[in-house]
Amino acid sequence: MTQTIPNSATETKVKVKMGDNHYGKADVRLFKVFRDQPKHEIKDVWVRVAMRGDFDAAHVEGDNTDLLATDTVRNTIYGLAVDGLTSSVEEYGKHLIRHFVEQGPKVTSATAYFTEHLWDRMQSNGEAHDHAFVRQMPKHTAVVEGDGKTFTVTSGIDELYILKTTQSGWEGYLKEPFTTLPETNDRILATVVTAKWEYQVDECDYDDVWQRVYTSLMDTFTDHYSASMQATLYKIGETVLTRCPEISRIHFAFPNRHHIQYNTERHGVTNPKSVFHADADPYGQIEGWVERA
Amino acid sequence: MTQTIPNSATETKVKVKMGDNHYGKADVRLFKVFRDQPKHEIKDVWVRVAMRGDFDAAHVEGDNTDLLATDTVRNTIYGLAVDGLTSSVEEYGKHLIRHFVEQGPKVTSATAYFTEHLWDRMQSNGEAHDHAFVRQMPKHTAVVEGDGKTFTVTSGIDELYILKTTQSGWEGYLKEPFTTLPETNDRILATVVTAKWEYQVDECDYDDVWQRVYTSLMDTFTDHYSASMQATLYKIGETVLTRCPEISRIHFAFPNRHHIQYNTERHGVTNPKSVFHADADPYGQIEGWVERA
Amino acid sequence: MTQTIPNSATETKVKVKMGDNHYGKADVRLFKVFRDQPKHEIKDVWVRVAMRGDFDAAHVEGDNTDLLATDTVRNTIYGLAVDGLTSSVEEYGKHLIRHFVEQGPKVTSATAYFTEHLWDRMQSNGEAHDHAFVRQMPKHTAVVEGDGKTFTVTSGIDELYILKTTQSGWEGYLKEPFTTLPETNDRILATVVTAKWEYQVDECDYDDVWQRVYTSLMDTFTDHYSASMQATLYKIGETVLTRCPEISRIHFAFPNRHHIQYNTERHGVTNPKSVFHADADPYGQIEGWVERA
Amino acid sequence: MTQTIPNSATETKVKVKMGDNHYGKADVRLFKVFRDQPKHEIKDVWVRVAMRGDFDAAHVEGDNTDLLATDTVRNTIYGLAVDGLTSSVEEYGKHLIRHFVEQGPKVTSATAYFTEHLWDRMQSNGEAHDHAFVRQMPKHTAVVEGDGKTFTVTSGIDELYILKTTQSGWEGYLKEPFTTLPETNDRILATVVTAKWEYQVDECDYDDVWQRVYTSLMDTFTDHYSASMQATLYKIGETVLTRCPEISRIHFAFPNRHHIQYNTERHGVTNPKSVFHADADPYGQIEGWVERA
Repeated sequence: MTQTIPNSATETKVKVKMGDNHYGKADVRLFKVFRDQPKHEIKDVWVRVAMRGDFDAAHVEGDNTDLLATDTVRNTIYGLAVDGLTSSVEEYGKHLIRHFVEQGPKVTSATAYFTEHLWDRMQSNGEAHDHAFVRQMPKHTAVVEGDGKTFTVTSGIDELYILKTTQSGWEGYLKEPFTTLPETNDRILATVVTAKWEYQVDECDYDDVWQRVYTSLMDTFTDHYSASMQATLYKIGETVLTRCPEISRIHFAFPNRHHIQYNTERHGVTNPKSVFHADADPYGQIEGWVERA
Repeated sequence: MTQTIPNSATETKVKVKMGDNHYGKADVRLFKVFRDQPKHEIKDVWVRVAMRGDFDAAHVEGDNTDLLATDTVRNTIYGLAVDGLTSSVEEYGKHLIRHFVEQGPKVTSATAYFTEHLWDRMQSNGEAHDHAFVRQMPKHTAVVEGDGKTFTVTSGIDELYILKTTQSGWEGYLKEPFTTLPETNDRILATVVTAKWEYQVDECDYDDVWQRVYTSLMDTFTDHYSASMQATLYKIGETVLTRCPEISRIHFAFPNRHHIQYNTERHGVTNPKSVFHADADPYGQIEGWVERA
Repeated sequence: MTQTIPNSATETKVKVKMGDNHYGKADVRLFKVFRDQPKHEIKDVWVRVAMRGDFDAAHVEGDNTDLLATDTVRNTIYGLAVDGLTSSVEEYGKHLIRHFVEQGPKVTSATAYFTEHLWDRMQSNGEAHDHAFVRQMPKHTAVVEGDGKTFTVTSGIDELYILKTTQSGWEGYLKEPFTTLPETNDRILATVVTAKWEYQVDECDYDDVWQRVYTSLMDTFTDHYSASMQATLYKIGETVLTRCPEISRIHFAFPNRHHIQYNTERHGVTNPKSVFHADADPYGQIEGWVERA
Repeated sequence: MTQTIPNSATETKVKVKMGDNHYGKADVRLFKVFRDQPKHEIKDVWVRVAMRGDFDAAHVEGDNTDLLATDTVRNTIYGLAVDGLTSSVEEYGKHLIRHFVEQGPKVTSATAYFTEHLWDRMQSNGEAHDHAFVRQMPKHTAVVEGDGKTFTVTSGIDELYILKTTQSGWEGYLKEPFTTLPETNDRILATVVTAKWEYQVDECDYDDVWQRVYTSLMDTFTDHYSASMQATLYKIGETVLTRCPEISRIHFAFPNRHHIQYNTERHGVTNPKSVFHADADPYGQIEGWVERA
């Protein structure tokens, strides 16, 4: 340790400036009960809000005059939810953005991110219960971006695990020196769906669209022999765009969760496509947008 | 750095011996398809096997003569599943243990742990599909322990998120200097169920018992005003032991996932028990066995 | 759906009783700064407290009269830390237990669990900083149990990833029909250490013991050719018990994180024990106590 | 359930086309030992490769002729590492991309993603060991994108937890109806660094740059009173761009991990900025690029 260590507090700095930047509050766990009817409804959603604008004074001079505290952002997300969260998270996103653009002196646009946990009504003593719920696996995600007047909405599905045990194959692909995989016309196809879609309308019933995308996915995943994850992705996109005129395009990210037939023959046990190793990693990752032609 | 640093390779050691010990393979991801009927069935389960016995030679002398490689354990878990995994994971556990006690020269007992991921048949184009599935949230866990002749079976439920939005309170508790919580007779009760139970029979239909425990939980969670997580735990245990004569006792671990009404009044917004902060931590943790009297 | 569905609220129940049970608060994130010296010190620890006693009234009758609210437990963990958390978490555990046994009318014993995150002093501008810290990977765990007068302390290490690239093998093990693994006298040995130990003294410098265990582990992991994970476990235990007279016995849980030489020869590439697949699962799991003879 | 359910296999679909898409292999766990010197070196890295090109035939017609299997991608990542992974992951990324653009008949560009786990040499028996290592908390990330001739490289730091116990405040911010946070000129500042940076040179010693960014971060985090996370972000960027002429701009994502002084006064305990609740969520999220002016 000699003088050659530069001292960050005193060394001469190059000239710099702020590029694109934003700030806000993340992981706000908002839960709302609609209790005006005997049959309660709930919204269980994690919210993040990020604000953009000219925040140079804060960054360069440490001058916080025009900054909303992120604690204020949190209070606002809860406070506005009382009257403002009445239908979909997408609509609430627009409401939040309008507020922050108006309230933050320097805020010119904002983005709201939502991860909505979905709960089914609990089946109890033979019927669907009025005020009890069981959490489901898939999530409804949404990103709403805007300047307070116009908005870009992206909705999505996350953590939806699906598989089929047959009617899927992988054949006819390129053979080259690093290729060792055998071809098959009967494999397990398993994935964890992450989907997102954009809209060609300014307003719609976002929860209803979500439901139609979900149903389209299930219907199409099973209606054909899958020549590849890619071919199935395209077909699902086709059904979604057919059934959801509100949507302009849809993106799928499909990890191909490999189920590898275990070689039990070397131990003298015949394995009739019955026992598999559900390989955690690595996995194929197939992603793409399907758009209107 | 002087000579005072002891050298682990040459310093004189005290006399030691092995205490309780075991070894085996963990996180074996076993997937089985039953394809002999047009309606396929699946088992998706993570398996761990641990073996006990006199393994002193391996520990003390580095002599592996009598050890099964854990890789062999893995091959066996897959290999035996072809013919041996035909019903519940609990039955397969007994099968595995019998094998390992017989096969390992020094193995006197073994334990098999299972985490079974549950999948529902997929709803596609209006009907339940023959060979497509959607993963569900809760898991079926099981631990089977034995010497190859007699077995102790513990089954369980894990990661089941349930909540009710009313009919729960917390009143009349002890007030002392560190107490600040206000009493309430109308709160949200939310938990993530971890349950396990033991049997008073040597054989039964384990999957059927699991289903009855699950239904009992749902039925009882909702059938009363909950004076506390403890009181609800007891009532659920009562129903389970009533409906499942196979079970000797049942244990619940209930995190009390607090949903705290957000104070929006300080911002001039009335919050009619509508908007809550779903607090991630800390949480109350209530655990106990309910047993036959 | 017919009348055969039992109604949990009205069906006749069997006689049951509470078995072993406890409750308390979990995941209390306690952070303490010692700022009386220019060189600040910190403790960053997640705490759980569970209380045992006769809580039958709460379970069976919904009578909370003698229960401490878990919210009170939380307030207490923070409140007592101001004066009571002055050295190790183990000492603070005794302090907490004494309090809860005294304060809870029905509490006869309690257990405190700690996960302490370890931070190193930050190296800044060439020296160790007075009040800045960088978090380290391993954790210091502790469980303290007692009736307020006598205590059982278990301390531990968690999430410590270590590996060596040679001086490890696996040979001479049992060959049977399910065995396919080739023998080797030169493999990578990698594990994630979870250790815990018990004491044969009532009082000691727990942080100092932790440090000696940690050093013993590093010193011994490297000082020999490892014939197996088991043999290395035994040798490390021997060093720990030699260097730590305070400890009566120590337990290690060693996942054997397999690094499998990748078969690149089939592509015409010689792989001189150089490129490996770090297999995430499954893994061998080797566990055992080393005790004084 | 009536005929109104559309059947996805037979309904008439709208016209669609593929938008931006790519595919490849993810979570390839590559481990390399450099054993030609007595002092071994290691690289422990998770790799993902995604390929872009005209894959319409595969998506639209299920024709796989021109597709590399993702299993081939895996074999290649391991196979090329024997001779091709000799220095930084960034360099290996270029090597991989050159290969895939050449090898995939339709591949026009590719992206390689790396998460490199960092290991320190183990301290054993008083010295740094030749072939034993201990894993560290922060990660070295990298994304390399290119058409095989020119490349865009982004490098990063992830999961680096840092904090300082004083010399940080939050004052002078905007007060509005949702604001409740009190001002402070002495708080704990804690974050988990995620950083990424771009280069203004085509070639450089990427590992050396990473080390300089890391050191700059530590040096600057501590060298000033922090008026806000934003102000500290800017200052760190300034030092990085001063010390790393190779870098064109740097982005930081700083969660503000709040440490909230616990109110023990209501229990009669004075808390001299000593005991804090380390709040897990929500957190402020501050993100921005610092660029050359």
